[in-house]
Amino acid sequence: MIQMTLKQLLIEGNSQEMVKLIAEMHPADVAETLIEVPLENQINLINTVLSEMGALILREMDLTDQAAILSQLTSEKAADILKQMYTDEAADLLAILPQTETMTLLALMGDKGKEVKKLLAYESDTSGGLMATEFITVKEEQTIEEVLLFLREQAPSTESAYYLYVEAADRRLVGVVSLRTLVTKPLMTKVSEVMYRDVISVPEDMDQEEVARLFEKYGFLVLPVVDEQEKLIGVITLDDVLGVAEEEATEDIHKAASIIPMKEAYIDASIWTLFSKRVIWLLGLIVLNLLSSEVIAAYESVLASALTLAFFIPLLIDTGGNTGSQSATLVVRALVTGDIKLSDWGKILLKEIMVGAFLGVVLGVAGMTLGFFRGGYQIGVVVGLTMGAIVIFSNIVGMILPFILTKMKLDPAVASSPLITSVCDIAGLAIYFSIASWVFGF
Amino acid sequence: MIQMTLKQLLIEGNSQEMVKLIAEMHPADVAETLIEVPLENQINLINTVLSEMGALILREMDLTDQAAILSQLTSEKAADILKQMYTDEAADLLAILPQTETMTLLALMGDKGKEVKKLLAYESDTSGGLMATEFITVKEEQTIEEVLLFLREQAPSTESAYYLYVEAADRRLVGVVSLRTLVTKPLMTKVSEVMYRDVISVPEDMDQEEVARLFEKYGFLVLPVVDEQEKLIGVITLDDVLGVAEEEATEDIHKAASIIPMKEAYIDASIWTLFSKRVIWLLGLIVLNLLSSEVIAAYESVLASALTLAFFIPLLIDTGGNTGSQSATLVVRALVTGDIKLSDWGKILLKEIMVGAFLGVVLGVAGMTLGFFRGGYQIGVVVGLTMGAIVIFSNIVGMILPFILTKMKLDPAVASSPLITSVCDIAGLAIYFSIASWVFGF
Repeated sequence: MIQMTLKQLLIEGNSQEMVKLIAEMHPADVAETLIEVPLENQINLINTVLSEMGALILREMDLTDQAAILSQLTSEKAADILKQMYTDEAADLLAILPQTETMTLLALMGDKGKEVKKLLAYESDTSGGLMATEFITVKEEQTIEEVLLFLREQAPSTESAYYLYVEAADRRLVGVVSLRTLVTKPLMTKVSEVMYRDVISVPEDMDQEEVARLFEKYGFLVLPVVDEQEKLIGVITLDDVLGVAEEEATEDIHKAASIIPMKEAYIDASIWTLFSKRVIWLLGLIVLNLLSSEVIAAYESVLASALTLAFFIPLLIDTGGNTGSQSATLVVRALVTGDIKLSDWGKILLKEIMVGAFLGVVLGVAGMTLGFFRGGYQIGVVVGLTMGAIVIFSNIVGMILPFILTKMKLDPAVASSPLITSVCDIAGLAIYFSIASWVFGF
Repeated sequence: MIQMTLKQLLIEGNSQEMVKLIAEMHPADVAETLIEVPLENQINLINTVLSEMGALILREMDLTDQAAILSQLTSEKAADILKQMYTDEAADLLAILPQTETMTLLALMGDKGKEVKKLLAYESDTSGGLMATEFITVKEEQTIEEVLLFLREQAPSTESAYYLYVEAADRRLVGVVSLRTLVTKPLMTKVSEVMYRDVISVPEDMDQEEVARLFEKYGFLVLPVVDEQEKLIGVITLDDVLGVAEEEATEDIHKAASIIPMKEAYIDASIWTLFSKRVIWLLGLIVLNLLSSEVIAAYESVLASALTLAFFIPLLIDTGGNTGSQSATLVVRALVTGDIKLSDWGKILLKEIMVGAFLGVVLGVAGMTLGFFRGGYQIGVVVGLTMGAIVIFSNIVGMILPFILTKMKLDPAVASSPLITSVCDIAGLAIYFSIASWVFGF
């Protein structure tokens, strides 16, 4: 409702009403509305509101949308907005702008520019690339009263004000104290008496996936980053890694469909990127599928004498592929989420042998019935037996391949549905024609 | 290192050293070690440490592991530990215990038991099922100084002490104020002057997925839950919904492989559950695949006169299925993550027509080459043309089906690889034999 009104005002360019309305809205809602209007209206709004508000709204938008707006502002206004952002957000945004523009803006950003420039030197998928340099440090010998007085006077801008880090005289990180502790413990207590000493911190070059896992395991809101001398150099907040989990899930889902992971979101990916991330696997799988052709060719005489066998090829190999995809998907996901471990393979194998046996019997009977009606009892027997055997076989292949890949230090997600399907097809056709040869007495 | 030592002590049952070591460890690390030793050693540890520490350790474990330990404790000890947990955690744990045990424990838990009992009445996948009842409320007319004094005297136990909720005289939720504001604004300021008035809250029956989306959109740490009179009845913290995203991703991944979503983790799922969640789709797809058989049967005479055509059936239909799976996976994931919207369909269609055309040309040439070497130039032409056509067709089917499903208010994830594969198979075979009939002049 309120968003509809804002959209109207944005398009009309009614600045006065716009500013009034925005004051009542959450910046995330403003951002959501903003990306629905033409770029010129977006720029108009950002130019109208204070840089602080502009920063709050921009940070809720996708990086590409932020960059589109920023490039159209004067360098002074853009630098002013960037100064209002946290250093990690400013760095992420500047990283996708053209080099010369970034340099100009960094120069205009003063001290903050220097901070951000340091962050830009880190790889974006490491702890250094995720961290912000805004944090609050206190000394061990300070009392809670002194700390609270300092906070009230300075009101320091930090992404998370809920943890204060305790530095020793040599600037090493020696403890952490929560704002909650500060407001509930007696005022004369010394920081050293209430701080938590076993601070878990990460080095600046830790991979973002590992950082995300630490957040998950310990339930942290903030994680400090230290350099080699154990000096605090930045903090990573939970929201910085929330995107990581989604990114990783998308990567796994893409891999499961034999798509090489890409950096861009689908909507931003070029036709060439989409083509190249897909064509390699498709061509590779064709080569693998040639073996299927070879199997059929090897049994040409059997096929010639009972052409009805050809009718069931798609049915049988699809069912095998589907069964294998199912067990592979279950196992890969369970491995990725830590639900099962490599050492569980024996237990899982037994489980899937049982599941596969039940599926094999049910689908085998279904296959036999279909075969019988289409081609008589011999075809019924062949299709039924093949279906049962393929299902049991594919189920085990789908289950075991992810374990083998993990054991070989490869990503189990490569055990994709298309790969499993191709492997099961080849084996399935061999099973089919072997059984057919046997039943028809070749 | 420290975890190895703890494991040793746990197995030896060296209580004194154990307690000393645990005091230096993060409860998440203790929990990680604990699940690696036999249950009797686990119980020994929990019985040894104070209930408060026991609760801290237990909450880091999976619910099933927690329940296994709790069932072996005396009811008094178990109730004592549950009292140290937040109400939402206690409710989650009690929900999976046998009914009679739950009743006994609730009775032993006193006032906290009554709170938890209320929570147990909510569906587990709604905001009511996620919320805890520990929160801090203040009044509009209080000064910051009064609030801070209250906090220091009461040190209330809440899962998140970083937000205080402001209640009007009629107990309606009218604002929120952060601890950060409290420690940075002048002491004589009234709560009403610094509170944020446009609090976003949720009703008690909101679906957990929607709750998770609100957290993501607004970057919240905590979200208040209100009843119909707008009275605050609970709070959901970010960590309560972190699991939701993983659960949802697992569900989507399972759906993509035609597995009906299950409530249990894979490792906990029974053979019967695994069987029943898979067999229905497998049988359904067999019925669909019958159409493939019909297509081949309809072209029996063409096949009889050029048996070589059969060799390429798996190759062609697999490639079609793979291509369709890829585009479906890309589009489904982009729709789920909000990367693309329903209204983007035209743009995406154009994009995928282009990508499909490139893929079709490359794979068509590959197919033609293979066909030529195996069966001469006519087969080469048939296989090449079919390959190109199937790839282009499947790519569009894979892209468009998720949009149609979404438009029909169905879950796009149902456009699973197996379903797309079956659809593409049927069409692919029809294309194959039509082209073959034409080339061979039937």
